[in-house]
Amino acid sequence: MEQVVFGVDIGGTTVKIGLFEATGTLMDKWEIPTRTEEDGKEVLPDIAKSIEAKLSEKSLSKEQVIGVGVGIPGPVDSEGIVHGAVNLGWGKIDLDDALGNLIGLKVKAANDANIAALGEMWKGGGQGYKDVVAVTLGTGVGGGVIANGQLIAGFGGGGGEIGHLIVNHHETVSCNCGHCGCLEQYSSATGVVRLAKEALAVEGAESVLKGQDVTAKAVWDAVKAGDCLAESVADKFGFYLGSALASIAAVVNPEIFVFGGGVSNAGEIMFPYIQKYYDKAVFRGCVGAKFALAQLGNDAGIYGAAKLVIG
Amino acid sequence: MEQVVFGVDIGGTTVKIGLFEATGTLMDKWEIPTRTEEDGKEVLPDIAKSIEAKLSEKSLSKEQVIGVGVGIPGPVDSEGIVHGAVNLGWGKIDLDDALGNLIGLKVKAANDANIAALGEMWKGGGQGYKDVVAVTLGTGVGGGVIANGQLIAGFGGGGGEIGHLIVNHHETVSCNCGHCGCLEQYSSATGVVRLAKEALAVEGAESVLKGQDVTAKAVWDAVKAGDCLAESVADKFGFYLGSALASIAAVVNPEIFVFGGGVSNAGEIMFPYIQKYYDKAVFRGCVGAKFALAQLGNDAGIYGAAKLVIG
Repeated sequence: MEQVVFGVDIGGTTVKIGLFEATGTLMDKWEIPTRTEEDGKEVLPDIAKSIEAKLSEKSLSKEQVIGVGVGIPGPVDSEGIVHGAVNLGWGKIDLDDALGNLIGLKVKAANDANIAALGEMWKGGGQGYKDVVAVTLGTGVGGGVIANGQLIAGFGGGGGEIGHLIVNHHETVSCNCGHCGCLEQYSSATGVVRLAKEALAVEGAESVLKGQDVTAKAVWDAVKAGDCLAESVADKFGFYLGSALASIAAVVNPEIFVFGGGVSNAGEIMFPYIQKYYDKAVFRGCVGAKFALAQLGNDAGIYGAAKLVIG
Repeated sequence: MEQVVFGVDIGGTTVKIGLFEATGTLMDKWEIPTRTEEDGKEVLPDIAKSIEAKLSEKSLSKEQVIGVGVGIPGPVDSEGIVHGAVNLGWGKIDLDDALGNLIGLKVKAANDANIAALGEMWKGGGQGYKDVVAVTLGTGVGGGVIANGQLIAGFGGGGGEIGHLIVNHHETVSCNCGHCGCLEQYSSATGVVRLAKEALAVEGAESVLKGQDVTAKAVWDAVKAGDCLAESVADKFGFYLGSALASIAAVVNPEIFVFGGGVSNAGEIMFPYIQKYYDKAVFRGCVGAKFALAQLGNDAGIYGAAKLVIG
C-alpha cells in the first residue's frame, strides 16, 4: 500500500499544501486562503477539510498517510507548542494536538523558517548534508539550524532567529525587534537598500544607481556591472553577514550554509563578499563550510513540513 | 543484573574514570596518568586495562556494562571521529572503533567541553533542562551546546567553540587562535586579568588591586569589596560575555546557561554584569533564559561521558 505524507506551510495570506510520496516525490500541491478573521479560528478546520477532500479525490485512505507536517509563521518549540503567531491571530496553542484531533492523523509542527531549512536539507541546496544552516535573506533575515539531521527548535521556538544576531554595537537606528544593530538591518533586502541609500547620500557619490528606484536587485545588478558604489555596499553586506555566519559556526559548526530568500536571487555573486569576512572571523576548528543557493523556492516549506513528520 | 556504565575523561596529564550505575549514581572514580609519549599510543590500551581491572575488582561481567563514554581534548564529530588531539599526540582517529575493539564494549566519544556540558545537564547545574548551553570560563573559554537533550558536535567537531565568537572587531591583540577580538580574550581568567591590567595602567588609576598579583579571583574579590575599578572590569567582562550569549541564544535558544570553570568560582556575583548586556541584545523570542552555576566541578566530564553512552 502506497504511503503518503502531507506538508502544510501556513502563511499570512495563503496556506500551501503538498502531497508527497514517502520518498519525497511531490504528487500534488495547491493553496487555500488563510482566513485570519476571528483570531484565525478557521485556519485549522480549513486545512483539515482540504486534506480530507484531497484524500477523497485521490482515493487514499487515512491508513496510507504517515502524517501531516505543518510550518507556522511564529515560534514553535520542540514539543509542537506554538508560542503565538501574530499574523494568524493565534495565541499559544498545542498544534500537534489541535490539528491532530480535527483530522485524526499524526501532526507535527515547527516554525516556517525552520521547516524551510529542513526542506532544503532534504531535497534542495543542502541535500546530502546533515549539519546545515539555512539563511533566508528576504524582507528580513531568518534561518533554520539543523544539527545531525535534527531541527533545532530551541526552548521557546527561537532557534535559528539569526536575523537578530547583533553585529554592530554602534548602530543608532532601530531594528523592527527594538534592538539596534541586528544582522537583518544590513543583510536583508531592506538592509541592502538602506546601505545603498546611505552610500548614495554622500556628497559627490557616483553610481549607476543614482536616480534609480533602489532595490536589492538593482544593487546586485549594479555589482554585476562593476559599479564601484554598489560593490562597497556588497562589501558591507558581506562584512556583517560573513561575521555573523562565523559566529554561528562557532556555536553549531555546520557543514553547509544554504542561502534563500529574495536577496539570494542575485546568485553566487554574493558568495565572495560573504566568504571574505567569514574566513577572517571563523574559528580554525570550523573552517571549510560550503556555501550553496537554496533550490526549492517557495516550496521549501511544504517539503520541510513533509520531512518533519517522516522524521 | 545490575547495569553499569564507565565515563572516561582524557586530559593532557591524567585520565579520569568513573564507574556509574545506569541511574547516574557514581560508584567509584579514579585516575590514571596520560602517557602521551610516542604519539599517545598507550593512552587507549591503558584505559582498556584499567577498566578490565575495575571489572575484575568489582566482580562485574562485560554483559553488565552498557558501554564506555569518552571525553577527548580535541574536536570529535557526531560519528565519534576525533579530528586530532594535540595534547595527546593524536591525529585523526575513529575512537569508537579503536577503543571498542580493544575492550570489547560499546564506546562513544565526544569533545571534553561538550561532555562536561552533558554532565551538567544530567546531574549538575542544568539538571531538568534539555536545551542547555554550558559556558566554561577557565584559562580559555569553552562550551557545549545541548538542544532537545542532544549534544551538538558539529560537522568537524567544532560545536560549542564559543570562546572564539568574535565580539570585538576593533581588537588589535591576537587571540591564541590567530584571530583578534574573540570572547576568550575578555571573559576567560586570562582575559579578566588583561582587562584589569589595562585599567590599572591608566594614569591615576586607584584600586585595591594596585600592587597586588592580579588574578581573576583577586578581581572578583575586589568587585565584592565594592572596588570601582574592579567593577568597571566586571562591566566589560559582562558586556562581551552577555552580548555573545545573546548571539548564541538567537542560534539555539537555550532555556539555561550553566557557567563553570575557574572564573565561575566567583559565584552569582557575575550574573548581573552578564545579564545587563544579555538583556540589551537578546531577541525578544529568546528572552527568559536562566543563568546557573555548574555543580560537578572536575567530575562533569566523567558524568557526561557516562550519559553520552547511556543516551
